[in-house]
Amino acid sequence: MGKVAFGIDVGGTTVKLGLFDGTGCLLEKWEIPTVRDNGGEKILPHVAESILGKMREKQIAEEDVAGIGIGVPGAVDEDGMLVSGAVNLGWKAFHIPEALGAYINVEIKAANDANVAALGEMWKGGGAGCHSMVAVTLGTGVGGGIIINGKILTGATGAAGEIGHIHIEDEETQLCGCQNRGCLEQYASATGIVRLAKKRLAQDDTPSLLRQGEVSAKTVFDAVKAGDGVAIEIAERFGEYLGKGLAAVACVVNPEIFVIGGGVSKAGEILFDYIVPKFREYAFPACRDAQFALATLGNDAGIYGAAGLILAGGADDQQSSR
Amino acid sequence: MGKVAFGIDVGGTTVKLGLFDGTGCLLEKWEIPTVRDNGGEKILPHVAESILGKMREKQIAEEDVAGIGIGVPGAVDEDGMLVSGAVNLGWKAFHIPEALGAYINVEIKAANDANVAALGEMWKGGGAGCHSMVAVTLGTGVGGGIIINGKILTGATGAAGEIGHIHIEDEETQLCGCQNRGCLEQYASATGIVRLAKKRLAQDDTPSLLRQGEVSAKTVFDAVKAGDGVAIEIAERFGEYLGKGLAAVACVVNPEIFVIGGGVSKAGEILFDYIVPKFREYAFPACRDAQFALATLGNDAGIYGAAGLILAGGADDQQSSR
Repeated sequence: MGKVAFGIDVGGTTVKLGLFDGTGCLLEKWEIPTVRDNGGEKILPHVAESILGKMREKQIAEEDVAGIGIGVPGAVDEDGMLVSGAVNLGWKAFHIPEALGAYINVEIKAANDANVAALGEMWKGGGAGCHSMVAVTLGTGVGGGIIINGKILTGATGAAGEIGHIHIEDEETQLCGCQNRGCLEQYASATGIVRLAKKRLAQDDTPSLLRQGEVSAKTVFDAVKAGDGVAIEIAERFGEYLGKGLAAVACVVNPEIFVIGGGVSKAGEILFDYIVPKFREYAFPACRDAQFALATLGNDAGIYGAAGLILAGGADDQQSSR
Repeated sequence: MGKVAFGIDVGGTTVKLGLFDGTGCLLEKWEIPTVRDNGGEKILPHVAESILGKMREKQIAEEDVAGIGIGVPGAVDEDGMLVSGAVNLGWKAFHIPEALGAYINVEIKAANDANVAALGEMWKGGGAGCHSMVAVTLGTGVGGGIIINGKILTGATGAAGEIGHIHIEDEETQLCGCQNRGCLEQYASATGIVRLAKKRLAQDDTPSLLRQGEVSAKTVFDAVKAGDGVAIEIAERFGEYLGKGLAAVACVVNPEIFVIGGGVSKAGEILFDYIVPKFREYAFPACRDAQFALATLGNDAGIYGAAGLILAGGADDQQSSR
């Protein structure tokens, strides 16, 4: 059957695991609970156990495993070092490939979960076929993952792609989670869209579908689809901020494609009606033709990308457990 | 003597050439005029002639040449293709390593001149010893060159590092050279500093050294050094724009160091008094500790970086004439 690879996505509640063939086809996926007791000391042993169990079940020998890729919620340097721990797991800083390598003697590569998900989208999702991509995750915050020539751009301290914290608004009075003011994610995340909506609704009494019930990114874009004028104004503000921010990103890395994912992206292609014209307006001419696509792998982007660390050469070649 | 390399920096008036030993020490440098007649058809033959002449003079055989690196004033893709020509040379689009390879049978790599100069500063200049760098050139415009793991970040259309065109000011009424409004280079270039100065001087009649004679980036920073209050205000505006812009760049690529070059950088370390505090104010916490240094190679950065394409592995491995 050729060599296989495992892609592991460690989250705060569950660990997602995937078994892939050598071409990156997902053969099987499953989950185990994340046990965060005692500084998360059981998480990696459980992962190893689960992988070894699957190998026994499928009669896969160690030499048939090309490697294990693992994405974790924290800054990971190019060597696979978890630089400053992972608060959601209770982990302190340590070298992930080395630690997991104590249980299984195959190649192991680790990276940040958002970057790994970006690699997944580039390899098998919305960015497939492209050489350079910026993945934009519009969730509670605005995350980013940058892939250049099929490799994750990690940055000096693991913070490359933190595009949600580009300063975009001088007039902001409220603090962002990062303690700065006026960060992109204060306007373009799910939470940011709700803020923009509440601000707009408080401005006057113009009738709007949004005046009934709780406002969310979903209700805003549902109202946009229904032709609601106030919702459209909110979407325009959102598009102005995000388009302008992504134009700045394009001046720096000039990607072939932006792939938009995260909860907000469930609104679908209509997002592009608001983001793309503003992007093209603010972009440097040579960067203006970047493509836009929706993420397609959903919650599986992490396991795909983790397997991609091994199979698509998406991590720096320095890191390995052996 | 080991293998040598040639570094070539093609400018609109002169072509700079350098002969380097295998460790990147500059053995000799010289210049030839750039003959732009007939679409610049003589430029590459002249370069080849000059290199072959130097090889005869020094009794260097083709097999003793590790390669030739060449920087040109235009967008060059990772394959060495001059994507949309070089207006300053009269060149249309063509594959540079292939064209120069018609005259000399050694490895040839080409890249954009600003990116090549950045590579030079990273390899042998202000960024030496670092792994990732953003070179910022404050001249007539604001240019940028991004080096990641010792390699130039080119971008999908050769426009990565065009940081001078990050949108930074919503209130601007004048057009930038790129036809957008509010680009970083409208405030942080030599020309931009003069604009800021003229605007400030027109505001009121506060006495200032800058009211005598022509205002330039140099006279502004000379006046800052002399403690001139108005000049200091101008420097603060400049620092606010550039610090904010570089903080956005740091969110994207999270470099280890920013190396500041170009004419404005002749003002020296005092620039950092105005740029760095604003950078740290706007930067995402994990990117806040980026270093700042002045460029050190001056006009030789181009030939160093061109040689670095060969000797430091600074270009993508795809491109070669053979």
